[in-house]
Amino acid sequence: MDGDGASSTGATPSEEMNGTGNLMDFLDEPFPDVGTYEDFHTIDWLREKSRDTDRHRKITTKSKESYWELIKSLLDAWSGWVVMLLIGMLTGTLAGVIDLAVDWMTDLKEGVCLSAFYYSHEQCCWTSNETTFDDRDKCPQWQKWAELMTGHSEGAGAYVLNYFLYVLWALLFSFLAVSLVRVFAPYACGSGIPEIKTILSGFIIRGYLGKWTLLIKTVTLVLAVSSGLSLGKEGPLVHVACCCGNLFCSLFSKYSKNEGKRREVLSAAAAAGVSVAFGAPIGGVLFSLEEVSYYFPLKTLWRSFFAALVAAFTLRAINPFGNSRLVLFYVEYHTPWYMAELVPFILLGVFGGLWGTLFIRGNIAWCRRRKTTLLGKYPVLEVIVITGITAVLAFPNPYTRRSTSELISELFNDCGALESSQLCDYVNNPNMSRPVDDIPDRPAGPGVYTALWQLALALIFKIVITIFTFGMKIPSGLFIPSMAVGAIAGRIVGIAVEQMAYHHHDWIIFKNWCRPGADCVTPGLYAMVGAAACLGGVTRMTVSLVVIMFELTGGLEYIVPLMAAAVTSKWVADAFGKEGIYESHIQLNGYPYLDVRDEFTHRTLATDVMRPRRSEPPLAVLTQDSTTVEDVETLIKDTDYNGFPVVVSRESERLIGFVQRRELTVAIKTARQKQDGVVSSSVVYFTEDNPQVAEACDPQPLKLRRILNLSPFTVTDHTPMETVVDIFRKLGLRQCLVTRSGRLLGIITKKDVLRHMAQMMNQDPESIMFN
Amino acid sequence: MDGDGASSTGATPSEEMNGTGNLMDFLDEPFPDVGTYEDFHTIDWLREKSRDTDRHRKITTKSKESYWELIKSLLDAWSGWVVMLLIGMLTGTLAGVIDLAVDWMTDLKEGVCLSAFYYSHEQCCWTSNETTFDDRDKCPQWQKWAELMTGHSEGAGAYVLNYFLYVLWALLFSFLAVSLVRVFAPYACGSGIPEIKTILSGFIIRGYLGKWTLLIKTVTLVLAVSSGLSLGKEGPLVHVACCCGNLFCSLFSKYSKNEGKRREVLSAAAAAGVSVAFGAPIGGVLFSLEEVSYYFPLKTLWRSFFAALVAAFTLRAINPFGNSRLVLFYVEYHTPWYMAELVPFILLGVFGGLWGTLFIRGNIAWCRRRKTTLLGKYPVLEVIVITGITAVLAFPNPYTRRSTSELISELFNDCGALESSQLCDYVNNPNMSRPVDDIPDRPAGPGVYTALWQLALALIFKIVITIFTFGMKIPSGLFIPSMAVGAIAGRIVGIAVEQMAYHHHDWIIFKNWCRPGADCVTPGLYAMVGAAACLGGVTRMTVSLVVIMFELTGGLEYIVPLMAAAVTSKWVADAFGKEGIYESHIQLNGYPYLDVRDEFTHRTLATDVMRPRRSEPPLAVLTQDSTTVEDVETLIKDTDYNGFPVVVSRESERLIGFVQRRELTVAIKTARQKQDGVVSSSVVYFTEDNPQVAEACDPQPLKLRRILNLSPFTVTDHTPMETVVDIFRKLGLRQCLVTRSGRLLGIITKKDVLRHMAQMMNQDPESIMFN
Repeated sequence: MDGDGASSTGATPSEEMNGTGNLMDFLDEPFPDVGTYEDFHTIDWLREKSRDTDRHRKITTKSKESYWELIKSLLDAWSGWVVMLLIGMLTGTLAGVIDLAVDWMTDLKEGVCLSAFYYSHEQCCWTSNETTFDDRDKCPQWQKWAELMTGHSEGAGAYVLNYFLYVLWALLFSFLAVSLVRVFAPYACGSGIPEIKTILSGFIIRGYLGKWTLLIKTVTLVLAVSSGLSLGKEGPLVHVACCCGNLFCSLFSKYSKNEGKRREVLSAAAAAGVSVAFGAPIGGVLFSLEEVSYYFPLKTLWRSFFAALVAAFTLRAINPFGNSRLVLFYVEYHTPWYMAELVPFILLGVFGGLWGTLFIRGNIAWCRRRKTTLLGKYPVLEVIVITGITAVLAFPNPYTRRSTSELISELFNDCGALESSQLCDYVNNPNMSRPVDDIPDRPAGPGVYTALWQLALALIFKIVITIFTFGMKIPSGLFIPSMAVGAIAGRIVGIAVEQMAYHHHDWIIFKNWCRPGADCVTPGLYAMVGAAACLGGVTRMTVSLVVIMFELTGGLEYIVPLMAAAVTSKWVADAFGKEGIYESHIQLNGYPYLDVRDEFTHRTLATDVMRPRRSEPPLAVLTQDSTTVEDVETLIKDTDYNGFPVVVSRESERLIGFVQRRELTVAIKTARQKQDGVVSSSVVYFTEDNPQVAEACDPQPLKLRRILNLSPFTVTDHTPMETVVDIFRKLGLRQCLVTRSGRLLGIITKKDVLRHMAQMMNQDPESIMFN
Repeated sequence: MDGDGASSTGATPSEEMNGTGNLMDFLDEPFPDVGTYEDFHTIDWLREKSRDTDRHRKITTKSKESYWELIKSLLDAWSGWVVMLLIGMLTGTLAGVIDLAVDWMTDLKEGVCLSAFYYSHEQCCWTSNETTFDDRDKCPQWQKWAELMTGHSEGAGAYVLNYFLYVLWALLFSFLAVSLVRVFAPYACGSGIPEIKTILSGFIIRGYLGKWTLLIKTVTLVLAVSSGLSLGKEGPLVHVACCCGNLFCSLFSKYSKNEGKRREVLSAAAAAGVSVAFGAPIGGVLFSLEEVSYYFPLKTLWRSFFAALVAAFTLRAINPFGNSRLVLFYVEYHTPWYMAELVPFILLGVFGGLWGTLFIRGNIAWCRRRKTTLLGKYPVLEVIVITGITAVLAFPNPYTRRSTSELISELFNDCGALESSQLCDYVNNPNMSRPVDDIPDRPAGPGVYTALWQLALALIFKIVITIFTFGMKIPSGLFIPSMAVGAIAGRIVGIAVEQMAYHHHDWIIFKNWCRPGADCVTPGLYAMVGAAACLGGVTRMTVSLVVIMFELTGGLEYIVPLMAAAVTSKWVADAFGKEGIYESHIQLNGYPYLDVRDEFTHRTLATDVMRPRRSEPPLAVLTQDSTTVEDVETLIKDTDYNGFPVVVSRESERLIGFVQRRELTVAIKTARQKQDGVVSSSVVYFTEDNPQVAEACDPQPLKLRRILNLSPFTVTDHTPMETVVDIFRKLGLRQCLVTRSGRLLGIITKKDVLRHMAQMMNQDPESIMFN
């Protein structure tokens, strides 16, 4: 631990306060790159916080000196809000552009707009004057490929040609996507949320949030979604938003030079990402709080909310859905739900939990196979093959041919009077004279039965293909496919209940609430509940999930069904395994992620975890006044520890501080270059007083107290590991020294903690691969 | 610190793991009352957590033994949800009862329902069949007092009689309220939120959440609100909800015996309280998270949400407002807002900030006077006088005579076509043929101008009287009065802007968005924005405030005005003083509350804060094998420390552990009674090995290792105080030992930290009065 990061960036408070300023330290300037971390290392939260406080203190002191400094300090105070504004605006814009591009390219697989090739099907027909409301999907400007090429829009030949071109476009898009990812930004693949969780918990993955990743992920996301693969854009949008956050961090040294502050911005960016993905700003903030973030102070809550709102309003200004609605799936139901309906809702919850378990197990098994077998060597081929299978199987079924979000939108919708969809093909009572939005339950027509069969096939198809799709080397989110699975299942259940209620008014369960001619069952609500259940089963989100769904419907009315389903699904899924898909992927990839939610309940003590073990060589320590420069250099060369404890003497083993490897290396190198008389046999001093040089001929001593962290974090060897884990989590430590009666015994690093936790869960300890 | 609370409740893990079980310790049974804390002391979060883990571990182990134990363990796991369900239901019920009773008693001040005396005015006239829609406020069953007594409903005599009885009822209600509080439950006064914040941060105030408080607060809340004083029921409802939470905690030993777990339940209860206060469950959860809670793990988030929803739906089932709406002030606006309107919205924000500052300063000054002068000796008289003044001044003005929440409700409302209120007395265009809900801007009629004057007077009255009301010895919330101040100001500004826009269509600012005949300004929205601004200025809530308001309107549309006003108000108020009303009251009462939001940025070190100071006598320590029972007893008698560090010897000063005063006292007392040979000259041993008794005649030694906490929390003397503060906050410590090079130097307690923080802010250090 280094609670005193100031030691490297300026005068330390400790030295100033203790009157040791007269020490003849040579290091007047800060080290060139102290305070940055190496790739795949964890950051020290306390140190980052301390450094920020120092920075802040300096600015506050300076601001009293002149007006210019005062303005600078005000700018600094405002920079957080500016960053949020910029993130919100860029995220909203990107989301809008992605939506527009996906709309266009998805339709491009089927046909083209003659009046302007860059119009999507809907835009094309909206701008056309010749369309009536009933025929709004058919307009002369929009031509399917077969019609354009051969002039025939009907017949087997046209069908085959359209089929062929659909598959061809899909293959082209996905090939482009995977190639771009492979060549330019390998980090752009996947959903990105597991990695972002790890990064927010304090891990460094250089380039993961870089400019290239931003650019390539945005482009390939459009391609991947347009290719018709069973994936969504929501997870990757969070990654894109975090890349935006990282980009704007680099504008302000307050954020770019402090890994802790940077992560506050990233948390807010994640909220903005979900906000634009669903049009749900409050849900986005809660998602960031519940699911993604690690350190989430109240200040961040407020700023996240701001960023999420700015992003949502920017998106609305762009208006990609053409209806000035903020939300992705806007629904409005006209009938309340009844207590008895909780039974099917809870069954949907069970289904969601089972789907979550199946998906996580299947997907993790497949991803492990990808990591360990030859399969992983041919990512491009894999994407091509899966795209091919998806496109070939998807085209014949109207519910899989269209984009998944359109499908969900249709499934969520209540059947109004004007609805022309097959799903709303009910047998109408000719004498009906009710208002438009309150249609009684009706018997299903043939269209509904066809739709049911097609939906059942689509369900099986989606379940299987999604397992293989998620984790390929293209951007892929799983919110939308999961929701699709749930929405299909829910709609099927909903129609079944509706028809049962219609045909069996006299059954006891229906008697009380479903009189003939009443509108008592809303199949769209079942679809929504199913979607929430499946999403909950996969991600184990709870509050944020319900709030997102609440924002979609805008009424508290339907919160109880959603909650019942979400809770059931979480409990069912948890019974088969505690981890959600993100945690599973984090574990699969071996990221050093210390989950806030895992409770460590074993009876081990710090002494069982600390290094060195009994069989190992003793701990590598420095002494305060008897180690030579050469000794230190040997130690640095022979070991790869991140730092070394400093003790009074090897006999007493009393700890006085901790010194970082990085700072030690730089200090010795600089001293050898700049300070006369420092040679290999010079003694390194960490003491407060000036060393007494015994004889004149002795080499000049090297004083390094300035880089010594005088407040290393210690626990005793008897501390229970649950307390140690708690301390590591809450304070964000990198390492912690173990003492007994003031004597140094060993060290526990974050890696040791993670390894121990994994061991205790009887898991493969080698999965923790990073430092 | 005591990270090893197990030492008192059973076999410690440390001893079992180290094979010291053969030590002949006499203390086989746990201490009778170890683990509880004294009144006005702080709890040790780490210890509570550790104890819960132990308990959980024990249950898990046992559950494998038999089916009965398995069922018990499942019940234990479910008890959290059961408690939430119970809290939600009771809180919702109480809120409904309070609403009904307040409605009835408020109307009782003016008249009585002849058909059933327990009907409020509205209920009375609703049940009457003789009422038409236009005359729905007048019905023969409802009679004012003068009419009932003298038979005349008009004239000066009737007015005076009504006036007199109005004041009389008000005095009666408030006298009852203050007497009940005085006699039965002194803790039932005030809003309770400052105390709940303190309790949730880990402080013990016995009886504050007791059954008596619950009962009396509920009854007196009804009386206080009905008396027409300028106070609201929202804050006290949070207190009532927390009392419910505490009540149900006592049903389950999991919560009743663990102060940490209990506080998780209380956090959720606070959310339920706000949920029913406003009908805003999400806002309630965020309020608990942002404003009230200290330790808020994710599990609590989910449970709070559940409790808040149950409470809201219970309240809706009771349906006190008779309109099956969940929310307190349901509003629906029909026109969007325009960019230019942000200027008045921000001005309202500035007003809100200024009001917040004025209120906090004025109220704190008045409360300090109450604490220090004779005023505090006559709480009953004070309440009577303030009620008298309020009632006498309130009656003549129709906007202050009615209940404050009705007033706010009317101010929020948009003027529809059917509105009969004075505020909606616009000059209608006779040719108007627009739909009912889209009325163009119209010139104000004489009623509006009268209303404006009355509102202006009401504003001044509310501002002044609220400052004196909050803090009296009756339940009093300040949400509603604050919102009323803001709503009045907002409505006045709104009408002004509306009339300006109507009469000056040609001004540049209005030209673009306000053509003649358009409905461009909604004065009700201004009232809402003003209410948010004033509430924000007083409480400094941000996210939760906006979310509560969002839930009231149910549309994202108006979030930007609300946010603009809330942010402006917070910034303006923060410029005059960082603390909200709750923090100010916490400070006024000297509660040991370590605010999570205060950033400690001073350059002090642990060594500057620790006791003993240089001038003080040395730290009271025990040695591991050379202190006699008599020494220990003298130490306990002479000092009042909560615990003592144990060192190897006074010379080496190497720390080996920490022992709690309470446990030491009990252990010695028990040993003297039960163990033969323990006399005053017996040596107390804390060592691991069996002590070597030199001679047979030496008294029997007393071994106390079992009560020794072997993992006390330590920091070095060079640790910056900002880190120490962070550790105290995040880990919830009671005390922390300070060492240098393994030698014990001193101790820092939570009290020391708070005192130091207060000193650093140049405040009166003596305000921290508790331990």
